Amino acid sequence: MIRAATLEDWPAIWSICAPIIGRADTFSYDPAMEEDAAREMWMVPAPGRTTVAVDDDGAIVGTANMYANRPGPGAHVASANYMVAARSRRRGVGRALVEDSVEWAREAGFAAMQFNAVAESNASAVRLYEQAGFATVGRVPAAFRHPEHGDVALLVMHRLL
Amino acid sequence: MIRAATLEDWPAIWSICAPIIGRADTFSYDPAMEEDAAREMWMVPAPGRTTVAVDDDGAIVGTANMYANRPGPGAHVASANYMVAARSRRRGVGRALVEDSVEWAREAGFAAMQFNAVAESNASAVRLYEQAGFATVGRVPAAFRHPEHGDVALLVMHRLL
Repeated sequence: MIRAATLEDWPAIWSICAPIIGRADTFSYDPAMEEDAAREMWMVPAPGRTTVAVDDDGAIVGTANMYANRPGPGAHVASANYMVAARSRRRGVGRALVEDSVEWAREAGFAAMQFNAVAESNASAVRLYEQAGFATVGRVPAAFRHPEHGDVALLVMHRLL
Repeated sequence: MIRAATLEDWPAIWSICAPIIGRADTFSYDPAMEEDAAREMWMVPAPGRTTVAVDDDGAIVGTANMYANRPGPGAHVASANYMVAARSRRRGVGRALVEDSVEWAREAGFAAMQFNAVAESNASAVRLYEQAGFATVGRVPAAFRHPEHGDVALLVMHRLL
């Protein structure tokens, strides 16, 4: 189940985000980012939206945020980010978050959705986005310094809504 | 002549930026952006840099800013933006700003430089960047709502340093 996040959800969201940000192997975020900065970044105010995925036991197992990718003449294209708790991978949580965000973007009137920087090494994310209708429309070579794989490409992925 | 900008340069910089932002036909900025927000955005603090192009009479005829394109694992790639006064186009000002920024990025230790959102309709900018060694590595269809041309593509352009 996906629902809008509230500020009370933040501690659970942070417990998911902190290790992902710290590993710095999927997102181009500062791995030393502190909790206040992370909350400011992740908890997007309206007209954007932050969501949580809740499992059958009521535990928060994933989170997403979504917003206009650019202001002004680019504001008809949405973007989004997704994080799933390590212990809850391979259970469809990411897929549910992506599908919810695509639906939200369509209903909010966006014409397309774009991911600006998908690490090519993040094969499960690339596959998930492709299955959700996204195509790779750009590939920036060596733009992501992976802690184990060295410099890998960042993909720009896109779909119309 | 290209030099680092100071806060005293801001009124001259704003006189260049304001009409470009307001026209909204090249940059994905909010065309209603007010002066304080524009100064905050354009006057990039160190370790980034903002420059001005000064002509023989001492007048500021162009400006650029440059910085790490992303934090964390993307911080080895620089990005930059350029604006030239309408009355000073076709005189090599843009070229001088681009070449200075590339040189700065190389000396600052960046491995590459990337432009995230070049409106494909901005043919003179695309040509200038190509002449400066940038290649188009991504093309996001219809991602820029041009006031006259309708939805045009945004290009991702890149070069190694």
